[in-house]
Amino acid sequence: MTADAEPGSVMAAEIAEQPAVLERLVTQGSSEIAQVTAELARRSIRFVLLAARGTSDHAALYAKYLVEVGLALPAGLVSPSSSTVYGSRPDLREVLFIAVSQSGGSPDLVDSLAAARTCGATTVAVTNNVHSQLAGAAEFVVDVGAGVEHAVAATKSYTAQLLALHLLLAPLGHPGLAINKVGPLAEAAQSTLEREADVHAVAARYRFANRMIVAARGYSYPTAREAALKLMETSYLGAQAFSGADLLHGPMAMIDAHTPVLAVATEGRGGSAMKPVLEVLRARNADLVLVRSHQNGGTRPGPEAAVLTVATQGIREALHPVLEILPLQQLALRLALDRGGNPDAPRGLRKVTETW
Amino acid sequence: MTADAEPGSVMAAEIAEQPAVLERLVTQGSSEIAQVTAELARRSIRFVLLAARGTSDHAALYAKYLVEVGLALPAGLVSPSSSTVYGSRPDLREVLFIAVSQSGGSPDLVDSLAAARTCGATTVAVTNNVHSQLAGAAEFVVDVGAGVEHAVAATKSYTAQLLALHLLLAPLGHPGLAINKVGPLAEAAQSTLEREADVHAVAARYRFANRMIVAARGYSYPTAREAALKLMETSYLGAQAFSGADLLHGPMAMIDAHTPVLAVATEGRGGSAMKPVLEVLRARNADLVLVRSHQNGGTRPGPEAAVLTVATQGIREALHPVLEILPLQQLALRLALDRGGNPDAPRGLRKVTETW
Repeated sequence: MTADAEPGSVMAAEIAEQPAVLERLVTQGSSEIAQVTAELARRSIRFVLLAARGTSDHAALYAKYLVEVGLALPAGLVSPSSSTVYGSRPDLREVLFIAVSQSGGSPDLVDSLAAARTCGATTVAVTNNVHSQLAGAAEFVVDVGAGVEHAVAATKSYTAQLLALHLLLAPLGHPGLAINKVGPLAEAAQSTLEREADVHAVAARYRFANRMIVAARGYSYPTAREAALKLMETSYLGAQAFSGADLLHGPMAMIDAHTPVLAVATEGRGGSAMKPVLEVLRARNADLVLVRSHQNGGTRPGPEAAVLTVATQGIREALHPVLEILPLQQLALRLALDRGGNPDAPRGLRKVTETW
Repeated sequence: MTADAEPGSVMAAEIAEQPAVLERLVTQGSSEIAQVTAELARRSIRFVLLAARGTSDHAALYAKYLVEVGLALPAGLVSPSSSTVYGSRPDLREVLFIAVSQSGGSPDLVDSLAAARTCGATTVAVTNNVHSQLAGAAEFVVDVGAGVEHAVAATKSYTAQLLALHLLLAPLGHPGLAINKVGPLAEAAQSTLEREADVHAVAARYRFANRMIVAARGYSYPTAREAALKLMETSYLGAQAFSGADLLHGPMAMIDAHTPVLAVATEGRGGSAMKPVLEVLRARNADLVLVRSHQNGGTRPGPEAAVLTVATQGIREALHPVLEILPLQQLALRLALDRGGNPDAPRGLRKVTETW
């Protein structure tokens, strides 16, 4: 990245690279991941713990749904501070501990995984850097293989993490869910990215907004969380994510006709569960942007401010999050540029964040 | 509650009631809770799951720290949609499943707990209504005994939930942590509430703010989450909560000299872990309000916009959250009134939220 590069060009290039990254992970990376899956299948695993920070935390949240729904095992997102700040050393026999990190470099995550391993957990590092400290500390390593990521705002490493976690975990629940069940994901990603004109119209609409709500349910809830983080770190927008159900328990009070709401409701059970939430949002005259499937996603058409379409045809619901985030990454990029910012170098951030 | 009541009078009365509620829970409620604890101590428990929505979700998050740190057991917050939307039926033998709900009335929570019980979990309902459906569905019931709560914005039921969860869980980790280790909590709460003039000054400062960040770490992180929710539901403020560590991973980019930040850092390990976060916030010239202990809480004095003091002397860190939220409840109330709202009747909200 050179200092005189066009603002946003690095992030734009990495967003555009995603279909190729996904394709490569399926064709070249999946057999190595399948070996880790086979090792895990031999272990007695009763609980799954996930540890991550930032964007990777949203990939971890996605994995939590994969575990709860697909593997029918209880799961939790660990609070790293429990071990790093309070020195907790829990009994982790029969626990699968998965740490997710693009860089594999944050000390609290490395310490957290190392402590879990000492406490008896089976440990897996899901990372974009197989030479990282995190990878070194883990018993098993999953390479998300996104290639070096330069932009501070993670994009391709996120969708690669989602797919890698799916490849790793889904076959544990249903051995039938091997690689041939991924479907035409790269093509669907490409097709979704090509609808960028719709995204630009949404960015223009919210050029002067200073708040935004993002809502979704089920597998798509991590999409809402990650979209809000992208908007915060590139456009400095006060973006807040809620599960559709949680939105009804209080935060709905702050929504009126001046509040932009991005609602993610692609076809599937999570999208269907958003129906009552969309009804309340429409009744409150929220300025609603619906992120939905081509085929309408089972959501009643309403007086939306805009619709962003995701090409989910032929892709199972558990993989929709890989696609749903794409127009929202484009939105964060475009909004940052429209506001005169440089999403490749957000103020006050560095690529690798070290926390203890 | 009559229609012509003074705006905010109901919420104000319930905030003021908290010292009495805490005292009553210690003196009258604790022996019944101790019986449930004794029953749990006889079970083989390897993993703890917590389920809740809204304010109660923050009490559940607090309990997660109690479990991870105090009981040295892995824990997770369940996504109710995994069972209610996706029909997941996990193997929950040796799992303690705790549902937290003021009303005990939300259908998804009742279904989620009933499903967990069917799947082999030991189930506990922590609720303010022992005659609720949730209480009926659970094997064990913990009555938080806050008395009927009228204000839509939960206050006394939240601190009562925190204390009840502490009374229930702390002795499981350290049998020495019985009731006599609670300390002079009611007096500390009263003393904290009496510093309301400081709160009014902060409310005046942020009369025209439309965003706010709340940050904390460890046991105090639930305080940040609950404070943000109170501000959203009463003042319609775009309030966002972050763990101090997560704030450094991205959202810090949106913070500048025009961003009000409430940082909770009372004396203890969680407060100490906020030090590097406070340094970054000060370097970015954030408009910082520090919520700290009388005795300064180990945090370096800085050019804060204001300080809100919490009377934590003689109270162990794991109980600080019961006190830290008090000035922040007062702030939400005052800010709503200053803005001409009625925090007793936030727009679009009802006391019992039913989600599926």
